Amino acid sequence: MNGPKVNQTLALVKLDHMRETPRTADLYSSAQAGSKNQTDMGTIRREGPGCTGNPQRLYVQDLPAKLDAGWVTGFVDGEGCFHIGINKHAEMRCGYQVLPEFTVVQHERDVELLQRIRDFFSCGVVRTNHGDRWAYRVRGLKDLANHIVPFFVMHPLKSEKRVDFEDFCRVLRMMEAGDHLTVEGVSRIRDIAARMNRGRSR
Amino acid sequence: MNGPKVNQTLALVKLDHMRETPRTADLYSSAQAGSKNQTDMGTIRREGPGCTGNPQRLYVQDLPAKLDAGWVTGFVDGEGCFHIGINKHAEMRCGYQVLPEFTVVQHERDVELLQRIRDFFSCGVVRTNHGDRWAYRVRGLKDLANHIVPFFVMHPLKSEKRVDFEDFCRVLRMMEAGDHLTVEGVSRIRDIAARMNRGRSR
Repeated sequence: MNGPKVNQTLALVKLDHMRETPRTADLYSSAQAGSKNQTDMGTIRREGPGCTGNPQRLYVQDLPAKLDAGWVTGFVDGEGCFHIGINKHAEMRCGYQVLPEFTVVQHERDVELLQRIRDFFSCGVVRTNHGDRWAYRVRGLKDLANHIVPFFVMHPLKSEKRVDFEDFCRVLRMMEAGDHLTVEGVSRIRDIAARMNRGRSR
Repeated sequence: MNGPKVNQTLALVKLDHMRETPRTADLYSSAQAGSKNQTDMGTIRREGPGCTGNPQRLYVQDLPAKLDAGWVTGFVDGEGCFHIGINKHAEMRCGYQVLPEFTVVQHERDVELLQRIRDFFSCGVVRTNHGDRWAYRVRGLKDLANHIVPFFVMHPLKSEKRVDFEDFCRVLRMMEAGDHLTVEGVSRIRDIAARMNRGRSR
C-alpha cells in the first residue's frame, strides 16, 4: 500500500464490488458507475416488464419520489432566480407590462430534474432556454402567489438570495394592489427590480 | 382593485404589517424588508444585551443552527464541484501530483453561508477565491474520505453531478491503492478527470 491511510469509507463505495452483489436497498448503489437506478429517491429498483431478474421482485412503474423541501430550498439557493421583467407594451394603460418570474435554469442533461421541480411546485413549465440550457419557469401572479411564495415563506432561503425574494414579494404585493397599472407604480417597481439579482454568484 | 384576484398568501407576507406586529416565531418574518433575523435557522430572534424589547425574552447568543442535510445536498447539486487537479511536481516519483478537491464557490455576500457549510462538514477551509468570490474547499484524501464522501453516499445528489461524484470516488479509491504514484495510474486518473465537470450548467 503506497497510498495514505484512510478509514473504511472508500471501501464501502467500491464500484466493482457493488456490481457483483447488487441489493435494492443498498446505501451505496448511487455511487455505481453510470447507474441510472435512482435508489436515492426511495423507489424500488427500475425494471421493465421484460426484466429477467429475480421473479419474486415486483414490477413497479418508474416513478421517482417527490423532491423534499430541504433539497428544493438548497437547490434554489444555488440555482434559482427571482426576476421582475418590465417590457414596453402598447396595450397597457401605462405603456409597460410588469412580468414577475421565478426560474431555475440547468444544462439539458438535468431536464428531468427541472420536471421534478415543476411537479414539486405543481405549476410552471419546463422549456428550452437557449443553447443547451433548459428552464423551469413560473410566471403569472396567481401561480407565484399560490405556489412559489408560500413555499419559500415556509422554507426560507439561507443565502442572500432571500433579499431578492423579499423584493420579489414586495413587487407581487404592489401588483396585487394594481400599482403596476400606473406610471408611478411602474417607476417604483423599476427601482426595486433594478436592485435585485446583483452581487449574485454569477 | 385593479389587480388580478389571488388568494390570501400575499397578504400574509405584507412587510409593513409584519413590522407592526413582530412575533419571534412568525412564519413570515423571513420576508421582512432587509431583515437579518435568521428565524429560518431555528434560533431565537437575534438581540444584543442592549435590546429594549420584551423583558421576558431571554438574551441568547447569535448561533445559527446547523444546516440540514437536504438543504446541503440541494445546494451542492447546484453550486458544488468535485474536481481532480493534476499538476506537474518534480518531487513526485511519477512527476505529477494528483489533487482531489471539493469546492463550493459563492459571491462574498454569502461567505457566512460557506462557513456554515464548513462547520456542517467539520473540515475544509473558507478562503478568497478570485475577485469578489469566496470558496469553501476540502482537499486531502483523509477529509474527503472521512467527511465528504460518506455524506454524499448517504444523501445522494439528485442532479447529473452525481456522475462527477462517482468519478471522484473512483479516483479517491485509486489514490487509496497508490495508483497516483505510478505513471500508468496517473494516466488513468487523467482520463477520468478529463470527463468530469463537462455539460455542467455553467
